[in-house]
Amino acid sequence: MELSLNTATVRKQWNLAQMIDGCARHGIRGIAPWRDQVAALGLQRTKALIKEQGLTVTGLCRGGFFTVKDWKDDNLRAVEEAHELGAQCLVLVVGGLPQGSKDLIAARQTIKESIFQILPVARKAGVPLAIEPLHPMQAAERACINTLEQALDICDELGDGIGVACDVYHVWWDPKLQQQIRRAGKKRLLAYHICDWLSPTRDLVSDRGMMGDGVIDLPLIRSWVEATGYAGFQEVEIFSELDWWQRDPDEVLTTCKERLAVS
Amino acid sequence: MELSLNTATVRKQWNLAQMIDGCARHGIRGIAPWRDQVAALGLQRTKALIKEQGLTVTGLCRGGFFTVKDWKDDNLRAVEEAHELGAQCLVLVVGGLPQGSKDLIAARQTIKESIFQILPVARKAGVPLAIEPLHPMQAAERACINTLEQALDICDELGDGIGVACDVYHVWWDPKLQQQIRRAGKKRLLAYHICDWLSPTRDLVSDRGMMGDGVIDLPLIRSWVEATGYAGFQEVEIFSELDWWQRDPDEVLTTCKERLAVS
Repeated sequence: MELSLNTATVRKQWNLAQMIDGCARHGIRGIAPWRDQVAALGLQRTKALIKEQGLTVTGLCRGGFFTVKDWKDDNLRAVEEAHELGAQCLVLVVGGLPQGSKDLIAARQTIKESIFQILPVARKAGVPLAIEPLHPMQAAERACINTLEQALDICDELGDGIGVACDVYHVWWDPKLQQQIRRAGKKRLLAYHICDWLSPTRDLVSDRGMMGDGVIDLPLIRSWVEATGYAGFQEVEIFSELDWWQRDPDEVLTTCKERLAVS
Repeated sequence: MELSLNTATVRKQWNLAQMIDGCARHGIRGIAPWRDQVAALGLQRTKALIKEQGLTVTGLCRGGFFTVKDWKDDNLRAVEEAHELGAQCLVLVVGGLPQGSKDLIAARQTIKESIFQILPVARKAGVPLAIEPLHPMQAAERACINTLEQALDICDELGDGIGVACDVYHVWWDPKLQQQIRRAGKKRLLAYHICDWLSPTRDLVSDRGMMGDGVIDLPLIRSWVEATGYAGFQEVEIFSELDWWQRDPDEVLTTCKERLAVS
């Protein structure tokens, strides 16, 4: 599997133009940019630079947050941007509990209904929507879709044009992981994100590890992904306030490439 | 449901004798002590003080950690202590990955086989074993049984004398929570632990909230527990380095009692 750079990995060091250039210099042929970075560089300029370097856009990060006001306009714009960039999917981080609410069941229902509303637009634009189940420790604040099983149940209800982004950081612990990756299959498995789980983990959001530095059996999970026929990239996405965001970004990219050997 | 004090809640302020006394003074009629505290006070002395105050021992914390050396002797001792104290169950925190291992599947197998080995002893002693699924963020270090479904699958394999401890902190996010509480039923549901999930959470281990201070819909989960016919206690277990462990322990117990109204 080829390497893709999720641009969160070097977001403290580089702007998007530098990231695109960095990918090209390091022979990394995939990129998954974040929308704030695209907005800063400009959509057409982003498109032109990515095209110039011949990079595959393995995903656009992100749509979602369906439990806040104005979710719809923002998600329709995200679909449009993903279409413009030729992204292989639009990643959905679905949002957590609305401010002041403890009603997880209602939040999950709202999320499903919201996806249902934007799905026809995404289908028409040829942009697959990828629900990213987030680690249960993110349920309150970021996403109350927390397992692949739950995400795939929603996909089954909603039909074509939707699948999942499988990020090892969020799902590595799941006793049903192999079963649900198999269930997703090539059709529903739209993206595969890698990094590592550090033990101990010092922060609930920004303490992800570089592949090989933690406890996730990456080759095993990759073998389950490959068994589906998945023909996409391995996208490295590392939030690391205390370590990798402090380093020279060229060193980060070099390390990502080296560590593919243990991924 | 009556209140029980899991002694972790005031473990920085009081020794076990003070905790037993505190429960009596505050009219809290259940207690779930930790084994290190029992060892410090002495098993027979603990037994005598608890009997003197007429407290119900809603659980002994804890057996488990089956993935470390010498697990067996320690767990057999734990069963014996739970028997001596007349505990309603021995809580099992099953252990995480062995040092240096990434093999979650093997660790889970080891855990199941180890429980299978001590179960006959526990049955004979009349001590129900309560597997406590821990939050997925604890999978590496403390317990790689992480959902009620996974725990109940093991119970189904192992037969009588084993069930689950349902701690809202670990399971509140689970989309299958209601379904799995129902599946557990009165037979398998051996303990119900409460506290709250703070948003944001500042630490992966010791930042639990007092009931009402977080985002868990406690009355809803309680209603699911009660629907099984569960006739036990609500056991308050709060690890809180930054807040409740810093407070006057009498204030902590008073607050626990007050907050039953929102639990």
